[in-house]
Amino acid sequence: MQTPTIEDIRAAHERIKPYVHRTPVMTSSLLDHESGAQLYFKCENLQNVGAFKSRGACNTVFSLTEEEARPGVATHSSGNHGAALARAAALRGITAYIVMPRNAPQVKQRAVAGYGAKIIFCDSSPAAREETCARVLAETGATMVHPYNDYRVIAGAATAAIELLDDVPDLDVLIAPVGGGGMLSGTALTIRALRPTVTVFGAEPAQADDAALSLAAGYIIDKASNTIADGLRTTLGDKTFGIIKTYVSDILTVSEDGIVAAYRRLWEILKVIVEPSGAVGFAAVREHGTRFAGRKVGIMLTGGNIDLDSLPFGSK
Amino acid sequence: MQTPTIEDIRAAHERIKPYVHRTPVMTSSLLDHESGAQLYFKCENLQNVGAFKSRGACNTVFSLTEEEARPGVATHSSGNHGAALARAAALRGITAYIVMPRNAPQVKQRAVAGYGAKIIFCDSSPAAREETCARVLAETGATMVHPYNDYRVIAGAATAAIELLDDVPDLDVLIAPVGGGGMLSGTALTIRALRPTVTVFGAEPAQADDAALSLAAGYIIDKASNTIADGLRTTLGDKTFGIIKTYVSDILTVSEDGIVAAYRRLWEILKVIVEPSGAVGFAAVREHGTRFAGRKVGIMLTGGNIDLDSLPFGSK
Repeated sequence: MQTPTIEDIRAAHERIKPYVHRTPVMTSSLLDHESGAQLYFKCENLQNVGAFKSRGACNTVFSLTEEEARPGVATHSSGNHGAALARAAALRGITAYIVMPRNAPQVKQRAVAGYGAKIIFCDSSPAAREETCARVLAETGATMVHPYNDYRVIAGAATAAIELLDDVPDLDVLIAPVGGGGMLSGTALTIRALRPTVTVFGAEPAQADDAALSLAAGYIIDKASNTIADGLRTTLGDKTFGIIKTYVSDILTVSEDGIVAAYRRLWEILKVIVEPSGAVGFAAVREHGTRFAGRKVGIMLTGGNIDLDSLPFGSK
Repeated sequence: MQTPTIEDIRAAHERIKPYVHRTPVMTSSLLDHESGAQLYFKCENLQNVGAFKSRGACNTVFSLTEEEARPGVATHSSGNHGAALARAAALRGITAYIVMPRNAPQVKQRAVAGYGAKIIFCDSSPAAREETCARVLAETGATMVHPYNDYRVIAGAATAAIELLDDVPDLDVLIAPVGGGGMLSGTALTIRALRPTVTVFGAEPAQADDAALSLAAGYIIDKASNTIADGLRTTLGDKTFGIIKTYVSDILTVSEDGIVAAYRRLWEILKVIVEPSGAVGFAAVREHGTRFAGRKVGIMLTGGNIDLDSLPFGSK
């Protein structure tokens, strides 16, 4: 598969429709007032398994031929992609092999196990993860489904923007968080094809600004990073970077405090749970307000999985 | 106005449509699995001002003649009804006078003031509240809009069940929290008229079981109560009690721990913010499971307003 065309993305959309939610677009006159813009929140936090990752996982799993599907699918992810792939495989009736570090949170292990996936534990170093994954692939003949650097996954992620444009045809701007770049690159492909006048921004933590640095440098910069937005600690892949450097206008960075304030405000006003990574687009509107004044701004809320026992607020 | 008929309720539904959300009905295969029933959550926590109270407030405010409306509306409520009435009055362009105790939380004062309502402070005793409210009514000529013991308010609340039945025509059971009884009595009226085979239950904290005691006694029992479900500390009124004793099958009580576990589980799985009072119906399913095994159960999630700085979980 080459870079997905709009036909590929539309085909992905039809393919996954039976297996994912058409998520709502929420608005708030109060948040509009506070931001000085008109905000349209695409609620992928309300997606199956609580994240947009269901789109890419379902598109990939249901694109496989019977022969390809039979040995199952595999990935290394202790996060939302792992759960999404486990669920997609269960829906197709095939095995998912999920490689995750021994120290992955219990809640994430349970989520994956709950879908009947086989968990293979490894040490937490990237080398151990890669090695374990390679061994699993060799032993099982399963198909590798990378969390983001895979055109089938990107085409799946790109379907959220189709729905948003259907609901809000006259957007001026669209902002998506960028970690590995699956959502951002997919979004950019859809916008480029269907509404090229819309400006597409990525948003990421200033403490994990590898995408901004990579875009400035013209090549992928790997940067060890620590941020509360745990889903955005990953680095771009060659496929996502190739799309992002061509079609994304800019990457906006946000502070850690800004991320917490943003997701907390979404909880308070929209009454939906958004995880820190999922709220980075809204944080960018709050911290870079002048770019958006008076404009119609779509914001991808990408996920809602968060440990309620370790919030930066809560107990008195 | 007498006890609302289904025609009154349908008229209320048409009247308020421009001013309130048609809220979604959410489902979760995981929560179905855990409960052994099929659960349909009517998300009034996603309603305007974060509570079903918008329905009754809008119905009342937009039922007033021009002449009645001109002097404005008044109520005593530091909670969701106060905010809902303030918003409804602002939409109609009239003044809302909201009597609230001097010690009401800042966040609730700001919510009401944000809609342009006039706040009149009083001491926190019921007597001071009544007295202040009577004075405001005498001085302004405003129409009193009681938080629940008013047939216009009840008819408004009853419209949520119309939407739920539209979306899920084959319900077996419907559960609503009961505090003052506006939601429960309205729900019972709609069900009685449209789907009398559906069993209607109320749910309340065991620590605030005045509705269960009242139903058993046959008259309204006032009971000072303390519960985390702050919206359910109120006592039934004669109008709501009259409807509830005729049409509601039973009142189920739940523990304080059960309420916390219920709303926390909704946050985790549905990814929506539900306040403790709003989750009492789900708590009843969890604590009285055998009553619901294998059945299709509608659950009113009545509100989503909660202080994120005083959760019984959160910080590590």
